[in-house]
Amino acid sequence: MMKFTINRRIFDQALKVVAKAASSKTPIDVLKGIKILATSSGILLTGSDATITIEDFISSDNDQNQLTITEKGAIILDSSLLSSLISKLPGEQVTLEVTSNFQTVIASGNSEYTLNGQNPDDYPRLPEIDPYSTFKIPGNLFKKVINQTIISVSTNEIRPIFTGIHVELSNNDLKLVATDSHRLSQRIVPLESPKDIGDEPIVLNIPGNSLSELKKIVSDDEDIDIQVTNNQILFKVGTTSLYSNLLEGMFPNTDNLLTNSEDTILDISSTQLISAVARAKVLLASGSNKVVKLELDENKVVLSGHSAQVGNFEEELDILGADGNPLSISFNPDYLESALKTFDGQDVRIKFQTASRPFLIVPKESADSFEMLQLITPIRTPGSM
Amino acid sequence: MMKFTINRRIFDQALKVVAKAASSKTPIDVLKGIKILATSSGILLTGSDATITIEDFISSDNDQNQLTITEKGAIILDSSLLSSLISKLPGEQVTLEVTSNFQTVIASGNSEYTLNGQNPDDYPRLPEIDPYSTFKIPGNLFKKVINQTIISVSTNEIRPIFTGIHVELSNNDLKLVATDSHRLSQRIVPLESPKDIGDEPIVLNIPGNSLSELKKIVSDDEDIDIQVTNNQILFKVGTTSLYSNLLEGMFPNTDNLLTNSEDTILDISSTQLISAVARAKVLLASGSNKVVKLELDENKVVLSGHSAQVGNFEEELDILGADGNPLSISFNPDYLESALKTFDGQDVRIKFQTASRPFLIVPKESADSFEMLQLITPIRTPGSM
Repeated sequence: MMKFTINRRIFDQALKVVAKAASSKTPIDVLKGIKILATSSGILLTGSDATITIEDFISSDNDQNQLTITEKGAIILDSSLLSSLISKLPGEQVTLEVTSNFQTVIASGNSEYTLNGQNPDDYPRLPEIDPYSTFKIPGNLFKKVINQTIISVSTNEIRPIFTGIHVELSNNDLKLVATDSHRLSQRIVPLESPKDIGDEPIVLNIPGNSLSELKKIVSDDEDIDIQVTNNQILFKVGTTSLYSNLLEGMFPNTDNLLTNSEDTILDISSTQLISAVARAKVLLASGSNKVVKLELDENKVVLSGHSAQVGNFEEELDILGADGNPLSISFNPDYLESALKTFDGQDVRIKFQTASRPFLIVPKESADSFEMLQLITPIRTPGSM
Repeated sequence: MMKFTINRRIFDQALKVVAKAASSKTPIDVLKGIKILATSSGILLTGSDATITIEDFISSDNDQNQLTITEKGAIILDSSLLSSLISKLPGEQVTLEVTSNFQTVIASGNSEYTLNGQNPDDYPRLPEIDPYSTFKIPGNLFKKVINQTIISVSTNEIRPIFTGIHVELSNNDLKLVATDSHRLSQRIVPLESPKDIGDEPIVLNIPGNSLSELKKIVSDDEDIDIQVTNNQILFKVGTTSLYSNLLEGMFPNTDNLLTNSEDTILDISSTQLISAVARAKVLLASGSNKVVKLELDENKVVLSGHSAQVGNFEEELDILGADGNPLSISFNPDYLESALKTFDGQDVRIKFQTASRPFLIVPKESADSFEMLQLITPIRTPGSM
């Protein structure tokens, strides 16, 4: 039955990667575990919560892995137990050996554990990926555009399509859109078209959770190989593979929400506005409804907030410029704060129409383009139009 | 009504110190707040949860404090709100002004908050301290001996006297003892007697919680001035004062538990044994009763553990030496781990009698003294005597 010896640190790192997908909360016992498969060429580790699956392969060809497979085989071992155990063992190497009844002996230094394992045949089979399209995206770019849009992904399952990021890949660019119907994030970046994309863009709705996990396993200098089927997507990064379901359904056309016909503009440092919003939130933290008000007139721009229990807040903002009609508009400070953070310290332009229409935040540098934008729907307060 | 301007960073630090005593869980509304008293000489901040009170004084004589008191007075403001607000304000200085109805305007930079305060007359009065004894202990020493004994303080209120550390101060030394009836920690250090101690030692039972808070506000290079009354103790460190109740009742005489008549000894590196216990705990974490077994015979010393759900663990320990009768003894690994950590990496001697009698851990260097010791009561398992 399965037996191998491996470098403990390498094994530890690989377990931590696949353990991200294994769930401790699932009612399906085998999914609390990690499947370990020893073949003649190496060790394949699999963790899954049924919607996301992560695999990592440790090759016996790489000397650094110090991997010697004495006997091929497979086992399922509890994910969190195995991870914390391997990280605490004393030796440089660790040996795993499956004995009878899926009992697994783990030895390192003078330590020896015997763990109760599970039958590897009970582990769910991964879908065969028969991709209609295959392409490549640089890791640092994909992480960046995910970060800029994932903030607007909905956590509410009522409209499942909004729990994902809508991705469109055409011959010249990559477009991501996310919305929870109160706010919207959009990012368009130029991307050289992969060879086999035709005239029709590739359109995918990828679950936000899968992209959160993907971010954690991609390093900046790696490319991500992506394979797409009708209902599955596979991301390959180095020796690691992440499988995810795709969301079904149509993502609404959101382009009609975006307009350059603003009546009022405000230019401001995103960093300064974030600080002011953070101060306003201190006051509102204990209140029931979080609302912050922004008032612009010819002379000044004032941010204010009010909580019946706690008191009130008012701050005149340092701005870079403002133009257009006077305006008084109210909104959720959490939305504004997370939107501003995607600009990474840049100066931004906020483009308002009226107090009841959504407003746009774009980089001041490229204020007329929709390539990087955040949209926020205001809160109607008594007296606003 | 009260008005002053102060350096924001200094005010922030002082608030964080007194906020440690203010409780957000108390049913007494004023104790959720911090009392701010502005006098002609400075600002006195007070936080209290009724058993522990911390005061900090910011003097107007110290230029660094940038303190200008325009009008004397007092106010109570919500502790957590005030702390997080002051830490986020934009300016170098902050101005507080009480207006009507205990409304308090807090201004810094372009920010202005108005908070609902409470009537300062409603704040509980501190007891007058009329000490029968006053003495001084170096901060680093007191912190160290608290750390070495506080681990055995009971969290169970059934015997209140065990929720504190028993402190005896005589002419030549300071002795601390804590026990929760399953384990005991003792530390004796030489300490030059303060002037006004007579032949009778000073005996105090100080709540563990108060000493935990004290540890946080003492820096290593400061002396602690201590004043004692019959039921109160006051610790003064720099500009900060911590008042605590003393526990009533008699602490039992624990000296009869300590004996040098061991039948088996084990010398081992505390660091190595901590690692082995940590590994054993991984296996036991999900089990219901945490028990680890130590077996000594002529040839080797083995640590083992067993969990019906998870599996079992066995490790032969690297030891420095062992002597005496063979022994098999079981105990709570958490107790052993926290006891070993108090030795700060030193080699220790563990002194056993039988499998059913408490065992002692002492530094290997000074194995015959009781000046630094941890005692643990074993767990009787089927088959142990």
